[in-house]
Amino acid sequence: MSIPELTDVHPAWLPPEAFRAIGSRRTVVRADGPLAETVRQEVAQAGGSLTDAGPADLVLTLSEAEGEDGYAISRRDGVTTVAGGDPAGLLYGFFHVVRLGEAAFEGERPVEHHRPAMRRRMLDHWDNIDVHPVMGQVERGYAGGSIFWADGALRPDLTRVRAYARLLAACGINAVAINNVNVHATEAHLLTDRLGEVAAIAAAFRPYGIRVHLSVNFASPIVLGGLSTADPLDADVRRWWAETTEQVYATIPDFGGYVVKADSEGQPGPFAYGRTHADGANMLADALAPFGGVVHWRAFVYNHRQDWRDRSTDRARAAYDHFAPLDGRFLDNAILQVKHGPMDFQPREPVSPVILQMQGTRLAVELQVTQEYTGQQRHVCYLAPMWSEVLGFEDVAEAGDLVAVSNVGDDRYWTGHPLAQANLYAFGRLAWDPALDPAAILDEWTDLTFARPGEPLRRTLHAMMDGSWRTYERYTAPLGVGFMVRPGHHYGPDVDGYEYTPWGTYHFADRDGVGVDRTRATGTGFTGQYPEPWSDIYESLERCPDELLLFFHHVPYGHVLQSGSTVIQHIYDTHFAGAEEVAEMRLLWEKLAGTGTGTVAADVHARVRELLDEQLRCAEEWRDQINAYFFRKSGVPDAHGRHIP
Amino acid sequence: MSIPELTDVHPAWLPPEAFRAIGSRRTVVRADGPLAETVRQEVAQAGGSLTDAGPADLVLTLSEAEGEDGYAISRRDGVTTVAGGDPAGLLYGFFHVVRLGEAAFEGERPVEHHRPAMRRRMLDHWDNIDVHPVMGQVERGYAGGSIFWADGALRPDLTRVRAYARLLAACGINAVAINNVNVHATEAHLLTDRLGEVAAIAAAFRPYGIRVHLSVNFASPIVLGGLSTADPLDADVRRWWAETTEQVYATIPDFGGYVVKADSEGQPGPFAYGRTHADGANMLADALAPFGGVVHWRAFVYNHRQDWRDRSTDRARAAYDHFAPLDGRFLDNAILQVKHGPMDFQPREPVSPVILQMQGTRLAVELQVTQEYTGQQRHVCYLAPMWSEVLGFEDVAEAGDLVAVSNVGDDRYWTGHPLAQANLYAFGRLAWDPALDPAAILDEWTDLTFARPGEPLRRTLHAMMDGSWRTYERYTAPLGVGFMVRPGHHYGPDVDGYEYTPWGTYHFADRDGVGVDRTRATGTGFTGQYPEPWSDIYESLERCPDELLLFFHHVPYGHVLQSGSTVIQHIYDTHFAGAEEVAEMRLLWEKLAGTGTGTVAADVHARVRELLDEQLRCAEEWRDQINAYFFRKSGVPDAHGRHIP
Repeated sequence: MSIPELTDVHPAWLPPEAFRAIGSRRTVVRADGPLAETVRQEVAQAGGSLTDAGPADLVLTLSEAEGEDGYAISRRDGVTTVAGGDPAGLLYGFFHVVRLGEAAFEGERPVEHHRPAMRRRMLDHWDNIDVHPVMGQVERGYAGGSIFWADGALRPDLTRVRAYARLLAACGINAVAINNVNVHATEAHLLTDRLGEVAAIAAAFRPYGIRVHLSVNFASPIVLGGLSTADPLDADVRRWWAETTEQVYATIPDFGGYVVKADSEGQPGPFAYGRTHADGANMLADALAPFGGVVHWRAFVYNHRQDWRDRSTDRARAAYDHFAPLDGRFLDNAILQVKHGPMDFQPREPVSPVILQMQGTRLAVELQVTQEYTGQQRHVCYLAPMWSEVLGFEDVAEAGDLVAVSNVGDDRYWTGHPLAQANLYAFGRLAWDPALDPAAILDEWTDLTFARPGEPLRRTLHAMMDGSWRTYERYTAPLGVGFMVRPGHHYGPDVDGYEYTPWGTYHFADRDGVGVDRTRATGTGFTGQYPEPWSDIYESLERCPDELLLFFHHVPYGHVLQSGSTVIQHIYDTHFAGAEEVAEMRLLWEKLAGTGTGTVAADVHARVRELLDEQLRCAEEWRDQINAYFFRKSGVPDAHGRHIP
Repeated sequence: MSIPELTDVHPAWLPPEAFRAIGSRRTVVRADGPLAETVRQEVAQAGGSLTDAGPADLVLTLSEAEGEDGYAISRRDGVTTVAGGDPAGLLYGFFHVVRLGEAAFEGERPVEHHRPAMRRRMLDHWDNIDVHPVMGQVERGYAGGSIFWADGALRPDLTRVRAYARLLAACGINAVAINNVNVHATEAHLLTDRLGEVAAIAAAFRPYGIRVHLSVNFASPIVLGGLSTADPLDADVRRWWAETTEQVYATIPDFGGYVVKADSEGQPGPFAYGRTHADGANMLADALAPFGGVVHWRAFVYNHRQDWRDRSTDRARAAYDHFAPLDGRFLDNAILQVKHGPMDFQPREPVSPVILQMQGTRLAVELQVTQEYTGQQRHVCYLAPMWSEVLGFEDVAEAGDLVAVSNVGDDRYWTGHPLAQANLYAFGRLAWDPALDPAAILDEWTDLTFARPGEPLRRTLHAMMDGSWRTYERYTAPLGVGFMVRPGHHYGPDVDGYEYTPWGTYHFADRDGVGVDRTRATGTGFTGQYPEPWSDIYESLERCPDELLLFFHHVPYGHVLQSGSTVIQHIYDTHFAGAEEVAEMRLLWEKLAGTGTGTVAADVHARVRELLDEQLRCAEEWRDQINAYFFRKSGVPDAHGRHIP
């Protein structure tokens, strides 16, 4: 193994400049094994001198007290010391020094202890081996093809995967599920006859302390094993999973485990056999337990063939209705993976009640780094503030795992939009420490990516990105109602696009008002799934936060918000404002070209500029469609007389 | 050549029973050549005896006076005589005898002369060689794959194409364009290095008097010829087309000509070179003229990237605006192919003003047998009454050519829905004689297809099919406004699906009213493209036919129609009625199973029954979406208190 070097691929947050401070120092690594070896190679690659015993500026050593993945950092008498609780901790401590740069070698530093809040900091790739005719190779991917597979086969050169592993380790990620949760025919075989490809990918991730997980098809015993059933209580099925899993671990001893999307959007699952999801998950947990593996069992189960005419069914209720009765019945290594909101990664949702209520189940909270509903990496939308809000909610940060869908592909900039790299970085950092300030994370990312640039670029990036999620929220679906996107690809506006469909995603706008009544008093009763005080806060028209009002209530256009504005005027105001903010964002970036700071490479500047043109076009389209739709429906003119087409 | 026989494919309107009368008779064919040979083989295949000179029941002979494709039929002294104006006329006369059955051999028959109204009675196939990732192999095809190509290559066995040719000849069709007007990369090569495939298909059609035409890419000189331009006035380009066309005719001497979709929906065209469409069409006409070929140049040119916010642009105007200034400038063998309506094959449109105004240009009127917007061969929708209305309009029947997009694929029943065969049959018959009564054509088709069944089946088919187009119109977009379909695939309702798109297909519904103002007085001025009296009729809110009201006017929901109903109540009433009519249709078919007539094969009955279930589901979906949409918008309750979801 050597430090991966790529030409024609952007270095993201690990350009050579990020290692300059280490490159001019002497380092001792007092540990052995593969991860310590990785650290040594990083030092050498940076041009730093490695000593065994002589005087050193940086000492990396082990100290069990720091715990799994943890480390302590301190500086005394001109020596900076990193003490890793284990080799992975050593690696994370090393990257902490990289983040600090010169500051790591200045003055004195009292001991700081760092331990990750989440045990598993995981990315899910929705990559296919084959290019799916509708979904492409990477489902909900906006950055090109898969970094793992090309032309139906494992890529012969996995240098880029190693470089990816390195980027992930530098922000604290320690697990990756490599394939789409919708496991199609070809990809099902990764579990058995194509296991060698998984092993090769695992080998590329291993030097950076990242375990590989695999999405598997619940019907594998039938599809791959030739059995007549996939019933989780059937003895042959259980034996098949046990033997198959044993084979997986014989090939990949540090294999992480399985990810399963069952009984969801057409995927097979235990319902076909009259079994519960606990039965299904526990069967796999049993197969994995002897090897220390885990199963991530997704809670994304709902009726996607709902009749839009039936107003009593509420998709928001589905996960809780399905899973709450099973609380306490999952084995210890069966982890219920729950999307952070009750619907599906909208720009604004309340926290899922499943996360707040299932105290007897190990949980993974799932976020979406890939910007499916937040601009598809054509829009600047820095998501850390949203995640920070979610993680600030009681109980959310107490989940054992934080999982997110990756936004990476074989694009030159990894993420399509160069600034979308910040979302990937921020996810890793928040999984490590949910209390981190999103603006501070942005500073970290900026310093690494742009080699500690001057104030103009820092100020521009903050001005563009800090509020970009709220800007996106302003010009898209209003007040938490969600899903006014074009069906299928989910890009751009279509107010009624999902209104008369089977997907359970409605806004119920008529000439008088808009919103979904999810109250206990008169609606679907979804508010009753929350514990107090949220149950009452969401139920109350007066106390429900403005930004979630239409998620929980159907109100007249004249309803006055806590902000003092009416719903209809709020819609007009936010949509004009949101589009204006994008125009300003674009101007700020444009100006940067003239500052001559030299910190933004010409190609990066050009790519972002092009994308800002598209973002502005799209934001104006959103503004005009939403405003025209609600003006046509309500007949209420804009109080400020602005043009609504 | 022999009469094609297929197993596992429905015989459509030429089952063996259709030839029973000929099979028990003696026939003389007094003509030579391939088409006469086809007739001889038909007689032999039917089991009839062929004599050379002896006494005969049926005499087929030539008589130049009957003209191109024409024939006379008479019966005297126990001998039925068909006199064809040419060998093709002989063939058509033979199939006339087939249609008559036993009646052809009964009593006396005064001489009847039959000549086709249209010189070219043509089907366009939108078939691709490759399966297009979005559009499939047959664009807007609802009956499986292509009958010409499979797995990226010409089908090795073209028996089915010969059988298709036979069906077409039996209803009078004499030309087929074999590939999609959107000519993709692979299909472009049919003109040159894959010309052998065209020749093979032409050989299969030839015994039934059908010429093959080819859709070509306007940019062929670049794509295939390696030139740097496709400028129609460039000498090298013109030479390339001349030489290429010469090669085509060297291979296929009776080749029909080219079909071109240029400057339309992304296809290349003369606009790129600052040339007119007359320049483009005439260049190809010049290349074809030495060989008697024609070019069909499609008038379907409009801005498909329109800004929905711009209410001054009107797609309905586009064809006339583009082509009327070119009237008189097309060569004689350049045929302008015009869709029957100004938009795109909606269930209800006015006749295109291009057809009514371009007196100095040879025209082909284009219909759509494939049911893109009329139920996609899952709904019973007998289109002959619509076409009959269109053809009844002054000037339409005077076009030289009638062209339609075929509805045939490799489906067992040819057309997916077995009853959709009637549309294909009726198209051919109306192209021959636009004055034919749609109900009489249905009788012809029924007699051939179901072997002259008893009254119960005839009555059922009339009850189901005669009014099925108007039923379809009732449960879909109201009053001629069109395009309330799901974007992309165009199946099922989505009232706002195209409302905020670049496609130029809007209804402008708001809380007060609905419809497109295309008047000269206050709208887009489209009515001004019509000659009198239509120009004034459509302009007038009082005189405009109800069924086209929203195509030409934006009116309040309370506007009173000529029928006496308000627009909003009309919407509710027609949608409840349309869905009910489908329910009745389904009951009628269901009952048929119990009558024991034995005239509908079990498999046909089952297929139609399944499709009627889907039609009813879909009609109810249309009813509920349209009614809910307009109730939410207008707030006006149904006068009869029926449930609107």
